[in-house]
Amino acid sequence: MDMKEKSLEAHSKWKGKIEVISRCDIKNNEDLAVAYTPGVAHPCLEIQKDENLSYEYTRRGNLVAVITDGSAVLGLGDIGPLAAMPVMEGKCVLFKEFAGVDAFPLCIKDKDVNTIVNTIKLLEGSFGAINLEDISAPRCFEIEERLNEICDIPVFHDDQHGTAIVTLAALLNAKKLLKKDYDMKIVVNGAGAAGIAISNLIYEAGFKNIVICDRYGIITHENASNDYQRKCADKFNKGKEGTLKDALEGADAFIGVSAANIVTKEMALSMNKDAIIFALANPTPEIMPETAREADVKVIATGRSDYPNQINNLLVFPGIIKGALKARINKISKEIQLEVARAIAGCIDEADLNPDYIIPSVFDKRVVDLVCDVVYKFRK
Amino acid sequence: MDMKEKSLEAHSKWKGKIEVISRCDIKNNEDLAVAYTPGVAHPCLEIQKDENLSYEYTRRGNLVAVITDGSAVLGLGDIGPLAAMPVMEGKCVLFKEFAGVDAFPLCIKDKDVNTIVNTIKLLEGSFGAINLEDISAPRCFEIEERLNEICDIPVFHDDQHGTAIVTLAALLNAKKLLKKDYDMKIVVNGAGAAGIAISNLIYEAGFKNIVICDRYGIITHENASNDYQRKCADKFNKGKEGTLKDALEGADAFIGVSAANIVTKEMALSMNKDAIIFALANPTPEIMPETAREADVKVIATGRSDYPNQINNLLVFPGIIKGALKARINKISKEIQLEVARAIAGCIDEADLNPDYIIPSVFDKRVVDLVCDVVYKFRK
Repeated sequence: MDMKEKSLEAHSKWKGKIEVISRCDIKNNEDLAVAYTPGVAHPCLEIQKDENLSYEYTRRGNLVAVITDGSAVLGLGDIGPLAAMPVMEGKCVLFKEFAGVDAFPLCIKDKDVNTIVNTIKLLEGSFGAINLEDISAPRCFEIEERLNEICDIPVFHDDQHGTAIVTLAALLNAKKLLKKDYDMKIVVNGAGAAGIAISNLIYEAGFKNIVICDRYGIITHENASNDYQRKCADKFNKGKEGTLKDALEGADAFIGVSAANIVTKEMALSMNKDAIIFALANPTPEIMPETAREADVKVIATGRSDYPNQINNLLVFPGIIKGALKARINKISKEIQLEVARAIAGCIDEADLNPDYIIPSVFDKRVVDLVCDVVYKFRK
Repeated sequence: MDMKEKSLEAHSKWKGKIEVISRCDIKNNEDLAVAYTPGVAHPCLEIQKDENLSYEYTRRGNLVAVITDGSAVLGLGDIGPLAAMPVMEGKCVLFKEFAGVDAFPLCIKDKDVNTIVNTIKLLEGSFGAINLEDISAPRCFEIEERLNEICDIPVFHDDQHGTAIVTLAALLNAKKLLKKDYDMKIVVNGAGAAGIAISNLIYEAGFKNIVICDRYGIITHENASNDYQRKCADKFNKGKEGTLKDALEGADAFIGVSAANIVTKEMALSMNKDAIIFALANPTPEIMPETAREADVKVIATGRSDYPNQINNLLVFPGIIKGALKARINKISKEIQLEVARAIAGCIDEADLNPDYIIPSVFDKRVVDLVCDVVYKFRK
């Protein structure tokens, strides 16, 4: 049975990958009177007096919304809100299975930035945190920024920050293993949600020598397709021009969040010695690990589970949201993101680091609690 | 331990009365590949081709949203969206425990009709049905009407229609027991969501001799507080004026969805012989059953579980939403509502009918499936 058959059969059997269950038995009038009327009036009145008690008396304290508009789903693109829901449910499953966090999927049938921001703001009282998912760039940047300004609960766009954090973790370990410096030259290819977030976060971590490219090569004011890319041209590229091929010459590291097979063996060969390649396009990486190996690349990572060094934001989002809910913080700051990346990198002892092991497995049980603990330290 | 202590302790222990769980195990990369990437792309693409498949491949087919703005919660009034959530979660528990329907609570932080309508419309792809809850009149009427016009899924305001259906069921049995006619005089007191819906539904069922009152007595164009009440004055009261006391003289039935203790023994005594009183105000009825009994009222029902004949919409909403989801109907029409009321009334054999048994117990296991089957007959 191929994957299509297997997945459709499984989804058809599941009839939804999540389920809402009751945490209380209702067997008789006494049960009804406590969980519903008249008893329920008491927690209601307590929350009316102090809204913080909503975390005590309702599910909010362990509940994240996974919200999309269906505009940038997996590698499938703008398939619409309804078609995005199997992915959202899958994400909710991962929150629950990996971190015990309740997650509920919502799709919004509109792509207007104001509408999405307003809708989510109106619903924030129903949740303890918001995970934005698969919303296309550049709208996703403004949506997340504005929501973080106006919401009382943390809003986390996993496609940006989850990916950036786990990539930084892997980069820190690759740097340590290959004894490179913070000023090593890093080429990031792909200037959507993930590429821009990765560039910004690794910059914050100390990697200042970054060139960011998109489909037209090194991003300049001329080829930038939005203000966020223009800001990247200023911050990272500083007047540089050229193709991705040009950028890769003499580079120490390549981080691709772009498209299949766009890095050739020759391009890899033109990189500095002891090169690092994170080819994260899914399912087909920017360069296949076998080809990169032939070009003498030292550390190779992908987004795939069938090669070593899988860079997967599953290492980040369950723990980070669990920690944010537990600590009741209202923002997942850059500082938290950096600390989480360092902690994930630190999961691997220096003695165990090797070219095929720079990042823990997604099934490494230690990671969620570790990440959660890091976030929890930032509680007010 | 009094009810307040008991309820707060229970709610504190539950930390939320509902929980979102995963329906699939994620133990290894193979599981991940089927439930999440890359396998999940297949159900996504199928739904993109045919949106109906969202009922097959996501939880939609068994999922209702319970949505409030917190403006008319229980007898507590406008306590706000956050404080309303323990009630919404309670409702979700009842959906699951009584009908196996997944229900998820949402509160909207705005009371503007347009905003509420637009927000719910934007989210409809996430659910198979919408249950509006505890939204104050008259806004609730317009919100429900407009949503039913624009949504592809059924929108049911339980405070209106659930209450109306179960009241009609009880009224049909009281009529049968006391051998009254459809033209018996019925006084409805309370012209909010429940009172207006009850009046309209029993009218549709054939009871045409209705007087509807509110706090200023029989509703007239002069004392009506909104257009919906004015329509009631035209449809039911037809120029009649006076107090509730005036209205009750010679009435066969009183249906109260109003306030504690507003019907005196004298008023009950002024009713026709073999009088029927449904005193549904909670927790204290419009007249206590003991007092009504002294006034020789024949059939007495309340909303309370500690007296006979509890009229509780719990007999309606789990089955009606279960049936609507199963049949995939997009409207719960008046015709369906009437049929459901007749079916609930029919749960009690004529031979078993007696003044203390005109409506089944909320724990009568037959009712949910019966109601569901009635609705299912209306599938397209």
